[in-house]
Amino acid sequence: RIDGARLLERLRSLGELGALPGGGVCRLAFSEEDAWGRERVIGWMKALGLEVSMDAMGNVFGLRPGREPGPPVMTGSHIDTVRTGGLYDGTLGVLAGLEVVETLNEAGMTTQRPLCVAFFSNEEGSRFAPDMMGSLVYVGGMALEEALATKGIDGERVADCMQAVGACGEQAVGRPDVHAFVELHIEQGPVLEESGITIGAVERVQGISWTELTFTGVSNHAGTTPMRMRRDAGHAAMATGAFVRELVTRIGGDQVGTVGALALSPNLVNVVPNCATLTVDLRNTDNDQLTRAERELGEFIDALAEREGIQVESRQLARFDPVPFDPAMVDRVESCASALGHSVMRMPSGAGHDAQMLARVCPTSMIFVPSVNGISHNIEEFTESADLEAGANVLLQVMLDLSR
Amino acid sequence: RIDGARLLERLRSLGELGALPGGGVCRLAFSEEDAWGRERVIGWMKALGLEVSMDAMGNVFGLRPGREPGPPVMTGSHIDTVRTGGLYDGTLGVLAGLEVVETLNEAGMTTQRPLCVAFFSNEEGSRFAPDMMGSLVYVGGMALEEALATKGIDGERVADCMQAVGACGEQAVGRPDVHAFVELHIEQGPVLEESGITIGAVERVQGISWTELTFTGVSNHAGTTPMRMRRDAGHAAMATGAFVRELVTRIGGDQVGTVGALALSPNLVNVVPNCATLTVDLRNTDNDQLTRAERELGEFIDALAEREGIQVESRQLARFDPVPFDPAMVDRVESCASALGHSVMRMPSGAGHDAQMLARVCPTSMIFVPSVNGISHNIEEFTESADLEAGANVLLQVMLDLSR
Ligand SMILES: NC(=O)NCCC(=O)O
Ligand SMILES: NC(=O)NCCC(=O)O
Repeated sequence: RIDGARLLERLRSLGELGALPGGGVCRLAFSEEDAWGRERVIGWMKALGLEVSMDAMGNVFGLRPGREPGPPVMTGSHIDTVRTGGLYDGTLGVLAGLEVVETLNEAGMTTQRPLCVAFFSNEEGSRFAPDMMGSLVYVGGMALEEALATKGIDGERVADCMQAVGACGEQAVGRPDVHAFVELHIEQGPVLEESGITIGAVERVQGISWTELTFTGVSNHAGTTPMRMRRDAGHAAMATGAFVRELVTRIGGDQVGTVGALALSPNLVNVVPNCATLTVDLRNTDNDQLTRAERELGEFIDALAEREGIQVESRQLARFDPVPFDPAMVDRVESCASALGHSVMRMPSGAGHDAQMLARVCPTSMIFVPSVNGISHNIEEFTESADLEAGANVLLQVMLDLSR
Repeated sequence: RIDGARLLERLRSLGELGALPGGGVCRLAFSEEDAWGRERVIGWMKALGLEVSMDAMGNVFGLRPGREPGPPVMTGSHIDTVRTGGLYDGTLGVLAGLEVVETLNEAGMTTQRPLCVAFFSNEEGSRFAPDMMGSLVYVGGMALEEALATKGIDGERVADCMQAVGACGEQAVGRPDVHAFVELHIEQGPVLEESGITIGAVERVQGISWTELTFTGVSNHAGTTPMRMRRDAGHAAMATGAFVRELVTRIGGDQVGTVGALALSPNLVNVVPNCATLTVDLRNTDNDQLTRAERELGEFIDALAEREGIQVESRQLARFDPVPFDPAMVDRVESCASALGHSVMRMPSGAGHDAQMLARVCPTSMIFVPSVNGISHNIEEFTESADLEAGANVLLQVMLDLSR
């Protein structure tokens, strides 16, 4: 059994880095705060005797050799956060991995296969799109050069920021050899809590579509310009936001849609905006419905631009099909959780995760624990200690199982 | 007759200060660029022999004594701009005033009444609301202390910025003694151009209503949060933007409405915004219709907040009733323009102007000249040289008329 208090202490300690005055943390990918976090976790890895390596995308791996060589059983997640994030999103999976290692160290146990605890760069994607960039590059799903050239919401380039925080490793990317991957993560949604269940055995991740839209119109005077003569880029952005809600409601089912970022220019009370940029995040477990949502959005935008006399530029920031996890791996999570006496349900993931990228190269699944009030990407994000501990014990059990 | 080339040269020269790379200018009120502009215009005033004074609100007055003492015939406008402004908005009225003075100086003419050329602080209002703040304080319509305590869109206080740019004058505000006021300004709208007419005799200014709305919801994960559980402050802002267009279209007539500024927090692609701030600029020549628009907006916001489970805070940034100008003054503008052989029409103003504040204390009117394509608050703002000259000559004529 893992040591719950030790896990909590590491979560608390990592939560100090980038801590926000009102609670929660800000460790945007490749920021100074992220660098502090990377350093602390690497320090812990070394203290636990893990062989630490870093790849060219800044992904970090702590290897615990097995009795036999060969591809490791891997776990891990990420330590970057959104701008106003909580203490558990990502970090739980990484620190529970370390807790598994420390538990085995204390028991003097060596597994047959090697074990590996990883943290992947820029999982959140909110500074640099796409999300899961580190694990995507790791599995060969995106060229390293393309990732390095990506510009963030602050205009900075991934390559420059990685350099600045010392995240440019030696190890090659693109052809990993992993026996199996399992990731522990908070659910970030309300399903487990509403069902009163402790463990989620994650069957699949829903499809993700991120689009950045830039509208260009003509700035003009808010008082003197008749409505018929306006080419109002801001109005186009807001009409798109209203449409996203209408579209998502009409499609129904699992469909969700969010306009999370929006900026107007020149952004003044009495000037009709000449430029507006916004992001649209659409998700569905059903890829056909997701594609339909994207198509309808595109049609709406084109008609809107035509009607309003403005230009529109559409840039895809991320597009991932729904990812099914390996059924045997899902079964394994379910049976390990049951064997430990925890209530468990099979469920999809609403969020994107590094596990969905690892699923391209090895049998993969995830372990979810409940989020209080279903809140995440919020400084109030919280999971009960008992649930954190339960999740870490299921992770230990699944890894032991896989490493035989 | 005024010297058109000299007027153009001063417009060009002032346009150098705060010039933007792509054309146009940025001289936001009480910014460093505004300070440069203030200094240059004060220099010109002194070179023309005007007695320069500055009041406690930073309004600057250049007095040309008459044969008799007493309240002056005043002209003027402003030299601050929006963030991406043109070269004519405001500056024309100030520099044409100087041109009137220089023309009289050259002719060796002394008028019976004193003349005064003024520029008023922070007319645009886009950094610090309300608009026309300087002239409003000058006429006693807003307490000096309230104006000084106003915080701008960048969080800076008027008093601190005025101090920094040396705009704190000695002269008291609130009880000006002015014989009459006439302001030359570009129309900033399409009416004169579409009518093929050179001079507008401005009969009234439409009512202005500025509201800042702040929505507070709950940030959450864009992928995991079911639509039914969202308290999306960003959606509320965008729905309000869409409503403003619908409302304005439904009211029709002169009603215009603009959401010029909008900001989301934390403003990230995959986070449901917990906070959104936006401005609504509503205008109408008919105060009843403007009041109706405000009421309907308020009702919409309340219902929206209730439905979406979010809080809303509403702050009035500016509210001015429509202002009628003195009929005899409007007649005078019309007859002077005709006497000089220009085509002229009576018309309302869509923009707010310092003249509407001066109208509280003395007979007032305005002279409009055409804006090419009706564009203003845009770096492309342009008025033909012949029209600038025509306007300045009408100003000269009206001032001579008034100063007898
Ligand atoms: N787990 C998580 O919050 N991932 C961020 C990527 C996303 O789903 O938007
Ligand atoms: N003339 C002018 O652009 N004034 C700014 C105030 C406003 O009308 O918004």
